[in-house]
Amino acid sequence: MKLLEETLAGIEPADSACREEARRYIDTLTMPRRALGRLLDLAEELAAMNRTLKFSAARKEIVLMAGDHGIVAQKVCPQPSSVTTQMVYNFVRGGAGINVLSRVARAHVSIVDMGVASDLSGLVQAGAVIDCKIAPGTADFSRGPAMSREQAVAALEAGIRVAQQLAPKVDVFATGEMGIGNTSPSSAIVAVLSGLTDPAPFVGRGAGLDPSKLAHKAAVIRRGIELNRPDPADGVDVLAKVGGFEIGGIAGLVLGAARLHKPVVVDGFISSAGALIAAALSPASRDYMILGHGSAEPGHVAMAKLLGKQPLLDLGMRLGEGTGAALALNLLDAASAIMNEMATFESARVTEEGLK
Amino acid sequence: MKLLEETLAGIEPADSACREEARRYIDTLTMPRRALGRLLDLAEELAAMNRTLKFSAARKEIVLMAGDHGIVAQKVCPQPSSVTTQMVYNFVRGGAGINVLSRVARAHVSIVDMGVASDLSGLVQAGAVIDCKIAPGTADFSRGPAMSREQAVAALEAGIRVAQQLAPKVDVFATGEMGIGNTSPSSAIVAVLSGLTDPAPFVGRGAGLDPSKLAHKAAVIRRGIELNRPDPADGVDVLAKVGGFEIGGIAGLVLGAARLHKPVVVDGFISSAGALIAAALSPASRDYMILGHGSAEPGHVAMAKLLGKQPLLDLGMRLGEGTGAALALNLLDAASAIMNEMATFESARVTEEGLK
Repeated sequence: MKLLEETLAGIEPADSACREEARRYIDTLTMPRRALGRLLDLAEELAAMNRTLKFSAARKEIVLMAGDHGIVAQKVCPQPSSVTTQMVYNFVRGGAGINVLSRVARAHVSIVDMGVASDLSGLVQAGAVIDCKIAPGTADFSRGPAMSREQAVAALEAGIRVAQQLAPKVDVFATGEMGIGNTSPSSAIVAVLSGLTDPAPFVGRGAGLDPSKLAHKAAVIRRGIELNRPDPADGVDVLAKVGGFEIGGIAGLVLGAARLHKPVVVDGFISSAGALIAAALSPASRDYMILGHGSAEPGHVAMAKLLGKQPLLDLGMRLGEGTGAALALNLLDAASAIMNEMATFESARVTEEGLK
Repeated sequence: MKLLEETLAGIEPADSACREEARRYIDTLTMPRRALGRLLDLAEELAAMNRTLKFSAARKEIVLMAGDHGIVAQKVCPQPSSVTTQMVYNFVRGGAGINVLSRVARAHVSIVDMGVASDLSGLVQAGAVIDCKIAPGTADFSRGPAMSREQAVAALEAGIRVAQQLAPKVDVFATGEMGIGNTSPSSAIVAVLSGLTDPAPFVGRGAGLDPSKLAHKAAVIRRGIELNRPDPADGVDVLAKVGGFEIGGIAGLVLGAARLHKPVVVDGFISSAGALIAAALSPASRDYMILGHGSAEPGHVAMAKLLGKQPLLDLGMRLGEGTGAALALNLLDAASAIMNEMATFESARVTEEGLK
């Protein structure tokens, strides 16, 4: 608990003076005023997080948190939990979507076992997976809490530790996840943090649920919320009662990164659930979050609103793994390059009043 | 005229059989069905253009066409034409927005003088600028045609030739432009090709026009359309009467690329005006166009609709130069990597029925 408390106490807001300085500097660059639109907003946010106008986004780390979910017993998704493990092996071999898109982004991927329901010790010993396993899968939250409060704190602290350990070699973090069944806890989290017990508006097809079963999925999640009564004012309670181990790991990663003034590009629906838990525990941590893309999962719009963020990309993606965050990383490279390399009116001798 | 006619006659639609083959192949990749959304649509389009599933987007060429505009005499923009020349020098020195973003995209930039109103022969001799100058700026189209029909054909053929010359070393083209005043001909083109004489819905602030002067700008453009009566069924006539040399060059580049089955990422408002001229001359050329981003210029939505395209990015940018196209190039890298590197269910031994 001490690490979590210390981390929460240590998170500072981004530096608004640096943001203003960045804004003034951008006005001296050779283009009509604000002509690069949201790319400039992003540059200012990154300057404020990094406390410098000349920030880098070169060293990129995608942290992919994996875990299983007891709620799959309620037939809320067509896949068996074993697919989580199969996909972890696919990640290790380098053939999954996130492997491909991380190579395009020139990002490193760390795979973290937060609570996969199988023995991954061979992969851990081979150095391919970081072991933070809290337990082999959560309990079925439609019949009781997903995990104990102690386990929720352990998941958050594991994520913080991963951020701390990787941070010295990282300019930008990005989140990713794998966990069959994890849209259900994510829908529960956004419902609870919206102050609702009915999750229906936030329930979608996840990785391919038959549309005729959406009402059943919503009813299962609703039962879980009504039974567990998570306290929306207590992020740890929400995570423990209706969350997941990988969601807790993501929340911890975000908090750990924020504590160290590092930007975190948040992937889609499940990662945003983790980000919501982080924001519930530390509103200031939102200053370090960048929403990579808008997920095709219907509840993601409400999540973005709660986080106060507009996604950078909107490509109708719903794969998870960190793929949307990986694509968005290119925009961070672009923002960094604008701040570091673009000519000013003075240096280029371009008529300033002309271009403004 | 012969080159233009031959090019138009030689443009084939993209290969729909290859598109279908790409779609079937994508369904074998280790992800829930269509989970990468529009990135997969893009991959299929690129496969259909390239006639292969294993296409590359590695060699990227941004062709930046520059030209000046007689219409600036009507005070439709705050900048003097001399800023076009200043910015060409900024491009050559590498300090402009497009230089920075092309480096991030790992794209080469070719700067083409289509009709800048100054002597750029020094830059041409130094090999920094490709000389295709039709004339030192267009005529004021509010008082007569912007250029002769012969000049319009010459501009189109110059663009085709640039595409032909660069093509052997290029996997993907992207368009860019610089030309003080060039939002006015672009607004005129989209109005005419929408069958309207009133350009007001398509008139915006360009590079920073005072909002109080928008009605004046619209009135000037309207006068030009009413005076010249361009024939919307004749793309060469529209280009000649209310267009621009760099807009003709962009249209020619698109046609030349389409003739060679090469994708072209179209930048924002002015580039889309060029793409509209290309589409008017050859509807099949649209099969090779990718709309890089949605411009903040209000008329761009109508342009996208006329082209039948949805922009990949939407970041409120309005710089031109090819900057929006440059940012979008990363998504072509991603689409190519998905098709070349991602594991299939068979190769990864992941339970297919589970993930679909």
